[in-house]
Amino acid sequence: MQDIGIGLVGGGYMGKAHAVAYSAVGAVFAPRLRPRLEMVAASSVESAERYRAAFGFRRAAQDWQALVADPAVDAVVIASPQATHRAIAEAAFALGKPVFCEKPLGASLEDAEALCAAAEASGVVNMIGFNYVRTPATQYARRLIAEGVIGDVTWFRGEHTEDFLADPEAPATWRTDGEANGTMGDLAPHMINAAQALLGPVESVMADIEIVHESRGDTPVTNDDQAHMLCRFAGGAMGHMFFSRIATGRKMGYIYEVNGTRGAIRFNQEDQNSLWLYKAEGPEAERGFRQILIGPAHPDYLAFCQGPGHGTGYQDQIIIEARDFLEAIADGANRWPSFKAGLDVAHVLDAARKSHSNGRWQPVVHT
Amino acid sequence: MQDIGIGLVGGGYMGKAHAVAYSAVGAVFAPRLRPRLEMVAASSVESAERYRAAFGFRRAAQDWQALVADPAVDAVVIASPQATHRAIAEAAFALGKPVFCEKPLGASLEDAEALCAAAEASGVVNMIGFNYVRTPATQYARRLIAEGVIGDVTWFRGEHTEDFLADPEAPATWRTDGEANGTMGDLAPHMINAAQALLGPVESVMADIEIVHESRGDTPVTNDDQAHMLCRFAGGAMGHMFFSRIATGRKMGYIYEVNGTRGAIRFNQEDQNSLWLYKAEGPEAERGFRQILIGPAHPDYLAFCQGPGHGTGYQDQIIIEARDFLEAIADGANRWPSFKAGLDVAHVLDAARKSHSNGRWQPVVHT
Amino acid sequence: MQDIGIGLVGGGYMGKAHAVAYSAVGAVFAPRLRPRLEMVAASSVESAERYRAAFGFRRAAQDWQALVADPAVDAVVIASPQATHRAIAEAAFALGKPVFCEKPLGASLEDAEALCAAAEASGVVNMIGFNYVRTPATQYARRLIAEGVIGDVTWFRGEHTEDFLADPEAPATWRTDGEANGTMGDLAPHMINAAQALLGPVESVMADIEIVHESRGDTPVTNDDQAHMLCRFAGGAMGHMFFSRIATGRKMGYIYEVNGTRGAIRFNQEDQNSLWLYKAEGPEAERGFRQILIGPAHPDYLAFCQGPGHGTGYQDQIIIEARDFLEAIADGANRWPSFKAGLDVAHVLDAARKSHSNGRWQPVVHT
Amino acid sequence: MQDIGIGLVGGGYMGKAHAVAYSAVGAVFAPRLRPRLEMVAASSVESAERYRAAFGFRRAAQDWQALVADPAVDAVVIASPQATHRAIAEAAFALGKPVFCEKPLGASLEDAEALCAAAEASGVVNMIGFNYVRTPATQYARRLIAEGVIGDVTWFRGEHTEDFLADPEAPATWRTDGEANGTMGDLAPHMINAAQALLGPVESVMADIEIVHESRGDTPVTNDDQAHMLCRFAGGAMGHMFFSRIATGRKMGYIYEVNGTRGAIRFNQEDQNSLWLYKAEGPEAERGFRQILIGPAHPDYLAFCQGPGHGTGYQDQIIIEARDFLEAIADGANRWPSFKAGLDVAHVLDAARKSHSNGRWQPVVHT
Ligand SMILES: NC(=O)C1=CN([C@@H]2O[C@H](COP(=O)(O)OP(=O)(O)OC[C@H]3O[C@@H](n4cnc5c(N)ncnc54)[C@H](O)[C@@H]3O)[C@@H](O)[C@H]2O)C=CC1
Ligand SMILES: NC(=O)C1=CN([C@@H]2O[C@H](COP(=O)(O)OP(=O)(O)OC[C@H]3O[C@@H](n4cnc5c(N)ncnc54)[C@H](O)[C@@H]3O)[C@@H](O)[C@H]2O)C=CC1
Ligand SMILES: NC(=O)C1=CN([C@@H]2O[C@H](COP(=O)(O)OP(=O)(O)OC[C@H]3O[C@@H](n4cnc5c(N)ncnc54)[C@H](O)[C@@H]3O)[C@@H](O)[C@H]2O)C=CC1
Ligand SMILES: NC(=O)C1=CN([C@@H]2O[C@H](COP(=O)(O)OP(=O)(O)OC[C@H]3O[C@@H](n4cnc5c(N)ncnc54)[C@H](O)[C@@H]3O)[C@@H](O)[C@H]2O)C=CC1
Repeated sequence: MQDIGIGLVGGGYMGKAHAVAYSAVGAVFAPRLRPRLEMVAASSVESAERYRAAFGFRRAAQDWQALVADPAVDAVVIASPQATHRAIAEAAFALGKPVFCEKPLGASLEDAEALCAAAEASGVVNMIGFNYVRTPATQYARRLIAEGVIGDVTWFRGEHTEDFLADPEAPATWRTDGEANGTMGDLAPHMINAAQALLGPVESVMADIEIVHESRGDTPVTNDDQAHMLCRFAGGAMGHMFFSRIATGRKMGYIYEVNGTRGAIRFNQEDQNSLWLYKAEGPEAERGFRQILIGPAHPDYLAFCQGPGHGTGYQDQIIIEARDFLEAIADGANRWPSFKAGLDVAHVLDAARKSHSNGRWQPVVHT
Repeated sequence: MQDIGIGLVGGGYMGKAHAVAYSAVGAVFAPRLRPRLEMVAASSVESAERYRAAFGFRRAAQDWQALVADPAVDAVVIASPQATHRAIAEAAFALGKPVFCEKPLGASLEDAEALCAAAEASGVVNMIGFNYVRTPATQYARRLIAEGVIGDVTWFRGEHTEDFLADPEAPATWRTDGEANGTMGDLAPHMINAAQALLGPVESVMADIEIVHESRGDTPVTNDDQAHMLCRFAGGAMGHMFFSRIATGRKMGYIYEVNGTRGAIRFNQEDQNSLWLYKAEGPEAERGFRQILIGPAHPDYLAFCQGPGHGTGYQDQIIIEARDFLEAIADGANRWPSFKAGLDVAHVLDAARKSHSNGRWQPVVHT
Repeated sequence: MQDIGIGLVGGGYMGKAHAVAYSAVGAVFAPRLRPRLEMVAASSVESAERYRAAFGFRRAAQDWQALVADPAVDAVVIASPQATHRAIAEAAFALGKPVFCEKPLGASLEDAEALCAAAEASGVVNMIGFNYVRTPATQYARRLIAEGVIGDVTWFRGEHTEDFLADPEAPATWRTDGEANGTMGDLAPHMINAAQALLGPVESVMADIEIVHESRGDTPVTNDDQAHMLCRFAGGAMGHMFFSRIATGRKMGYIYEVNGTRGAIRFNQEDQNSLWLYKAEGPEAERGFRQILIGPAHPDYLAFCQGPGHGTGYQDQIIIEARDFLEAIADGANRWPSFKAGLDVAHVLDAARKSHSNGRWQPVVHT
Repeated sequence: MQDIGIGLVGGGYMGKAHAVAYSAVGAVFAPRLRPRLEMVAASSVESAERYRAAFGFRRAAQDWQALVADPAVDAVVIASPQATHRAIAEAAFALGKPVFCEKPLGASLEDAEALCAAAEASGVVNMIGFNYVRTPATQYARRLIAEGVIGDVTWFRGEHTEDFLADPEAPATWRTDGEANGTMGDLAPHMINAAQALLGPVESVMADIEIVHESRGDTPVTNDDQAHMLCRFAGGAMGHMFFSRIATGRKMGYIYEVNGTRGAIRFNQEDQNSLWLYKAEGPEAERGFRQILIGPAHPDYLAFCQGPGHGTGYQDQIIIEARDFLEAIADGANRWPSFKAGLDVAHVLDAARKSHSNGRWQPVVHT
């Protein structure tokens, strides 16, 4: 059992989630490398110190530069805003330190391209924070599709819908400003990643993107409230994706439906411990979507609980993610999803934005 | 209590449904006009006679022409294939007889235009067979939206999905041949009508339409297996509609979701006695989609049962439809949906087909 | 096609349901005997006349005695209160006329015994109105269990729960007075019948019966608001049944769950078009309760609709019931459930009441 | 920030869960006392060493005696079989060390009484492992009922059903031997505790308890496969509880339904992030059970995730439990549920067993 010093940048929503994950992952998965919560950085040294005390890190950093450079920091976890991702990751790569970066991969397609290139050039382990595909149910859905259980896939429907800005009276914040913080920048990446994980590459898209509430208070809103797109997948399937932060009543509508020639799958993250599977086999009278309760027979569940149907939650995905990052470092080889997967998503977003501007189908660049 | 002689053309899937409806509607709703099952016509005199005996009509007609012309036939119900709708309805209008016509309104946009014009010219009562909007739950959803219970509508998602051709080995039939029998011709009209009923006119669409299984056995398939479209509604909302006859596992996926600024509604015809309503009011901790079980407090339910949650079924919609047709005749004035509503749907279908061909957004013609 | 004159006693909740059913059943099922709505009787000649006009009967009767005696009345349908069942049925049997009697079989165990004896002595066709077991889903559940699909049954849970008296402020009515109108008298018979249909005879019970709201306004309540019982079935299974008219939020909670050694079944009448089946077979990871949407592959559905998942409703059960009664008459032989099934239920109710009084398990009499 | 040395006895199903919980709780809740994973004991020193390495404890103990006595062990967590609970806890109390003990409170009513007495005599903090009542949804249900949101409670239905022994071919193990390991010993305590937490004391019970599969292979089964009981609560409500390890298809059927005069609540641990609430208020047409997705507005959720509907899982309950134990120690005062709550459950079990033997209602002892 060898330990590894973790440096965490950011102590907000996701910073805390990673802090908990690196505290728990050792006991859950007994990975070869045991994380040591070495250092945390934030936007000020005071907040860094607050996070240190709360989460149990050894030291608070002056700033992220100090954290990245610190010799006791062996790997860097970036959980600060999108605009900061690129500089931090590039600095870490320059020192040969593995990087885990929260989604999206930087604030723009350019960032994503640069980050991917830097990662490859450095040769060190890199990973992007698409945590929802790690839910045991979605890992299992992916396997079912790959094994052909539902036959050839003909249709995909995905959405990522929440309602945190559904109220037109909700005030403007940083979330209502800047492309990278809109629905396409913030929510879409998770579901686009899922689509790619489940069906393979998206070939072309035709999108419609909308600012529904054009100002909040006196402040203009500069990014999209909802967006959707027609898709054509390289594998031949048709599809549709929808993203919204104004979907009243939806709290975590990470929802997908996949139709195949021999079966179908349905999933909703709001009930993340059920996967719905239909198999077109057996007597017609006995057919129906079955609610599979996730348990030890499904990927990465057993480490959390021996009993089926007892359930994993949001935080557990981040623990699985931490395990994967640690094991990738131990192997010295990337595990999916690396930065490359972040760039794949960025290309779809870019094509969607172009198609919205010009009102035409747009091919998606593949790299 | 005055009776009215009904002439029914067609005794298949829908012909039988109308025969049952006109048998039952008197006892259910006590309408001013009581239907007398006078005459039935079919593709041969033998089958007409078979239907007569089975359904309890007084007489079988030689053919639809004889039926329409018969003096004891006071109103005509058309439940024969789309290609026959126009000639039959026009003949009835010429004699000043009210016409109920199954959806879609003829086999093409031209048919729909001609039928609408003929109906208006004749001045007699006419109605088109959009039965699903008559389910008590959907009538109620319409009322909730109209009354502003969910605020301003921002998003609509609709689908009509079934799986009767999901099996790639299923043989070619008349259903796999001809535009009017494809998914757009056959299934889409119901959901497009629902979208218009719930949100008002569709302004423009961008569609993708697909033949997934290009031949069945040695027979080429000439019409679409699935189709979908981005929509912009005149009222400002965005939306998406999807239609499929290969949606494995879906039996009657007439599904819609409507997001508003103050609430949201969800419905699935597969559980037609529940309407799901979310209201953004009261303490956050108590909010959630509520499953409203349809009962006497909802439109057109009480006539079927005094107990809430006891449920209505498919056939009951057709009885409501029959009541509306009879009452329209008694009033001498159309009730929604008249042929005009059929034409509104045909215009959306036409725009969708054009947009699919040219890969661009297409405005929908309004009349 | 031969017709048969129907005489209906009662035009309220169930009287209307039967009137509609006998209007529609000919077109739906094409039974050998076609009902002619001959005569209706009610508590006064004025109300009988009102029902006649509304439902489309030929004649209103002076009283039930006149109806039963009328030579054009070939079969009698009793939909008047429990206290009237016995006299009407006995009069009809005396004339050799088939009788359909609404549940329960009279107002007491004595009534039930007398009615059963009279029915047997007369040798004419008799049937009791347990309509819920005729829902296609429940017919199918019965078949699945009988065929051993879920293995040996180990557990049964049933409830019939509604909330029409949940509000403590709801006023006293005839429903809150008299044993036959309490929860045990009114709601329990349906679920007890279901338990017997699905699992076979109940061997012994241990019950608890309660008046929750002892008065309403100034009027004392004399019958039970809720009741439940432990059961032992002759076939070896354990079980529990619960009945309530104060189950806030439940509208038609006719719910059962059956566990077997190789599978399980769940059903709720509030979603009567789904049956939930679990089969302990295939890979563990793929197991789950499947939601079977009822369709043409299930009993008595196809006559209502060719499309699966389109749904039947409350009224359709009564149509199926009418078909069974007509076909029994045509055969000259009872179809299940005859009066005997009503007596089987009455014996369970009697044992439950005794066990509640003496606080001990009570064996159920079998005949 | 002060730390506290945790000594864990047992490293199996629950031992691991507690090891993870004490690893994570610091970062999740920032409790006043920070746990230090000091020592683990198991049935052999080899397995203790294995757990030490896997979970990240500092030291493995020779045996539980050494662990309890170790000066660096400040508090003891017992996650070994029921037969060991008493001796370990008594030894810890003798040294004035706080004890967390897994449910049930020992192997018998005698154990429970002795443990409760020892705990009180020692005056040190004690807690019993009823984790399911800590799920945010159930904490919230408790609050809703306490605040009268559903009015006066009239009915409670609870079950704890799983299917790990549903297959009659499953072999005999330690679980099929001995009263403390049967369904009543193993599963019932959780739901009885929930019933008491939600409604208050149970006054009397009438139970039926069954060994369904009397032998497995050649080995006789000596404990119950399923059991259920009628209940009367001191507060006036009626109720029923059912426990089964042979409930085919149920994986974690910790299910309860509570009816009140003004509302109702439903919950199923298999979907632990939803609570279903019905309120008898507002227009009848808008009423229905609402699916509340648990989020930051509900108890103990926010520490796990800022987003509503993102979900907590099984492991998170154990983290909440660890927080409560640590905070109780910091306060020097018990938090619910202390050993007393374990004894309350044991009294219900005892009354149920007696009532099963003598076939009569049995009062429940209160202390
Ligand atoms: N995977 C997922 O489910 C989610 C991912 N995210 C992603 O995580 C990242 C962080 O988002 P949140 O945690 O929601 O934001 P947040 O606002 O809650 O926290 C941001 C943190 O970054 C720190 N920070 C800001 N600027 C910094 C700088 N220059 N140097 C060092 N620290 C700095 C702040 O002090 C704060 O602790 C974003 O990229 C976001 O897209 C966010 C939420 C969910
Ligand atoms: N509203 C709804 O839910 C549904 C509507 N439909 C519509 O109902 C219409 C009929 O469809 P189905 O009943 O499914 O077809 P079907 O094939 O089951 O029955 C067609 C009937 O029309 C008769 N027919 C055919 N040609 C005729 C002619 N020249 N003269 C007189 N009778 C003729 C046939 O004898 C047959 O009885 C179509 O327009 C279809 O789009 C169909 C199914 C569902
Ligand atoms: N199968 C089912 O789902 C249901 C069965 N029932 C049963 O149906 C029967 C009738 O109940 P409801 O229709 O709810 O009652 P209701 O009060 O709605 O109607 C009773 C009818 O009986 C008539 N009636 C009363 N006394 C009469 C007499 N002496 N002679 C002739 N007619 C008389 C009344 O005029 C009235 O039309 C009862 O036995 C009840 O238990 C009731 C509801 C549902
Ligand atoms: N709260 C909950 O959800 C659950 C509670 N439990 C309870 O947790 C306790 C443990 O059960 P499981 O973890 O399922 O059992 P298990 O069989 O998985 O683990 C038992 C552990 O106790 C250790 N052990 C046995 N005898 C010992 C001794 N004399 N000294 C020290 N260590 C000893 C074993 O080495 C093993 O690590 C039981 O009381 C059980 O009722 C069990 C499962 C779920």
